[in-house]
Amino acid sequence: MPISQVIRNVRPLGAAAVDLVIEAGKIKAALPTGSADAKLSCLLDGQGQLVLPALVESHVHFDKTLWTRPWRPNTAGPTRNDRIRNEQVLLQDFGVPIAQRAGALIEHCIGRGSLYFRSHVDVQTVWGLRHVEAMLALRDQYKHLIDLQLVAFPQGGLLIQPGTAALMQEALEMGVDIVGGIDPAAIDRDPVRHLEALFEWAVRYDRGVDIHLHDPADLGRWEIERIADMTQACGLQGRVMISHAYCLGAFAPAELHGLADRLCELEISIMTCAPSHVTVPPVAMLRSRNVNVCSGSDGIRDAWSPMGNGDMLERAMLMAMRFGWSKDADLEMAFDIVSAGGARALGLQAYGLAPGCPANLLVLPAESLAAAVVDRSPRRAVISRGKIVARDGVFLSI
Amino acid sequence: MPISQVIRNVRPLGAAAVDLVIEAGKIKAALPTGSADAKLSCLLDGQGQLVLPALVESHVHFDKTLWTRPWRPNTAGPTRNDRIRNEQVLLQDFGVPIAQRAGALIEHCIGRGSLYFRSHVDVQTVWGLRHVEAMLALRDQYKHLIDLQLVAFPQGGLLIQPGTAALMQEALEMGVDIVGGIDPAAIDRDPVRHLEALFEWAVRYDRGVDIHLHDPADLGRWEIERIADMTQACGLQGRVMISHAYCLGAFAPAELHGLADRLCELEISIMTCAPSHVTVPPVAMLRSRNVNVCSGSDGIRDAWSPMGNGDMLERAMLMAMRFGWSKDADLEMAFDIVSAGGARALGLQAYGLAPGCPANLLVLPAESLAAAVVDRSPRRAVISRGKIVARDGVFLSI
Repeated sequence: MPISQVIRNVRPLGAAAVDLVIEAGKIKAALPTGSADAKLSCLLDGQGQLVLPALVESHVHFDKTLWTRPWRPNTAGPTRNDRIRNEQVLLQDFGVPIAQRAGALIEHCIGRGSLYFRSHVDVQTVWGLRHVEAMLALRDQYKHLIDLQLVAFPQGGLLIQPGTAALMQEALEMGVDIVGGIDPAAIDRDPVRHLEALFEWAVRYDRGVDIHLHDPADLGRWEIERIADMTQACGLQGRVMISHAYCLGAFAPAELHGLADRLCELEISIMTCAPSHVTVPPVAMLRSRNVNVCSGSDGIRDAWSPMGNGDMLERAMLMAMRFGWSKDADLEMAFDIVSAGGARALGLQAYGLAPGCPANLLVLPAESLAAAVVDRSPRRAVISRGKIVARDGVFLSI
Repeated sequence: MPISQVIRNVRPLGAAAVDLVIEAGKIKAALPTGSADAKLSCLLDGQGQLVLPALVESHVHFDKTLWTRPWRPNTAGPTRNDRIRNEQVLLQDFGVPIAQRAGALIEHCIGRGSLYFRSHVDVQTVWGLRHVEAMLALRDQYKHLIDLQLVAFPQGGLLIQPGTAALMQEALEMGVDIVGGIDPAAIDRDPVRHLEALFEWAVRYDRGVDIHLHDPADLGRWEIERIADMTQACGLQGRVMISHAYCLGAFAPAELHGLADRLCELEISIMTCAPSHVTVPPVAMLRSRNVNVCSGSDGIRDAWSPMGNGDMLERAMLMAMRFGWSKDADLEMAFDIVSAGGARALGLQAYGLAPGCPANLLVLPAESLAAAVVDRSPRRAVISRGKIVARDGVFLSI
């Protein structure tokens, strides 16, 4: 008979306190606090803290991080191509392996409460499949703690770098989860062939698609329409994400209602980190038309920028700031985007606090869900599949 | 003979480690670490951490805060006037006195490393001088620890609320430091008379001027030109601040070179919190033309928004994000804005790490000044006039 444990006196998303009964790594029941069998072993006494489903990091670049390395002043030039080349030079012969840098960052992110991740992995001819191999090994190393999806990501372009297409397919054959793309117009300068390649591989290998789209305004919007066409033609509803989509911030939200309805119908998710120096998708409008929105940290202390700390609760706060949100309902929406929105985007089967879901939980002090977003308490306990994996925000070696 | 103490092994702004000799609450000398007299009493062993001048909070509304109160969902309507009315209703008979709320917030801000503050104080006919009295008492209560400047701030308008002008003058007679204004066009609808009143009082009472300016684009820019005219006519060079100045974000920076040069010549400071949901002044351009820029938290958990934590190092990080800064020089500029820029804006006589400056210091772990801005370590020791007033970011009752 499986052994049950209990997390006592926690408030699910800020609601009335319950005792959460955990069994075989899953949530078994939520009982009014004090009513769980007193003989059950206590996994955690929540003392009235909030319990949240573990956070979802929907867009990160673990393989690029310089985490654990000494501070390195950023030396990249001003254009995107400058930055791509700067990173190639830096990482090509970088002395410290990805396993060490990205592994430490994964553990840090777990400490902040994320247990679900989608990481892009750089596929370029300069280093071939080295990043893919390292990230597949990390996916395996941490599979007892986290769900880590990997995207084969042609950072330097797909068509303009001969040999990249073959590497992409090899990465997918090795078990990478998602087909990635980037700026089909600005970088490859042949948007239709770029997208056709991605969708052909997605169908052939039965994978989802995730496209970095920084292309601006009308150009980016036109590409989103083409992505929608191909999603529909390939029957990939629910398996496509458009990351960044700065272009959607160039229009009055009302101009985008038709496009939003199409994204909703095709279950295409929009990922935004809610950056504050560029235009961003109109998140509230998209959500009001039932388009799924998720969020991520993007790069964390890498050759692109020294910013970032992998804290998805802080990301929710930054998103609220980006849109001037101050109402509880809006702050709760920001939380939903870094939790349930991410779960939908990543196609997670069981996510949340309902019985049957994995006991993947974040427990932290806060008066309410909205307050949790504003306060971002560092005093976080994190539970993965029924085991405590972080206390006070610090990952425990288990 | 005065007693000297030493702060051992700290790196001023990230430079080589020194021992800082402190005497009579001031910095006496910076010696290569290890070379200070071993018999000197050790105030703090920095262990190679950074030492920074205490942070400058150039724009806050202490009297409005709901700090220490239970989480209160924001209920204001969408317009600025809705928010003004919402706050009037909430604060008019609020049960918990300003001394308690603002006092606790001041102590919290000290814990984050700020020791210099400019707080606006709401002067309105609905509550007369109640806020002024409370904030004057707090200024007195904390004068052994911090420099707190107060601005008489006609939140609800100056001309449209009969009786406000008399209250403003009374506040100045009571010892409020600065004459405040707000949106001379949008709120009072008579910008010239509004500004004339402020500058007349500034001259009569020998005070500086600090004007909240949210008025947009060409309207706001025109008002800045009038503020410059009056600053010049009244001989108030170096004593005028324009807060927010959203209007300056509506133009290409190059269009504003002439205006920037005028602001520089008249030593008018621009204060921006670098909010991400509105346009903001082009800080890098302003700085490149020697316009002084400072920053602040604005409201902290009040009837306007539940956001904010009074952390000026986080504010520097948010400013860097707002402009997409990633270079060390830019991150250092962000720090300068929350430190030396604030000191210039507030007209502080002695500020910094040079011998003779007050020993008002922030010691925290970081690899470099740029890293301090990105990391925002909570493990901060704060020293006010040679005494430790906070450890690990927590204010000590002294």
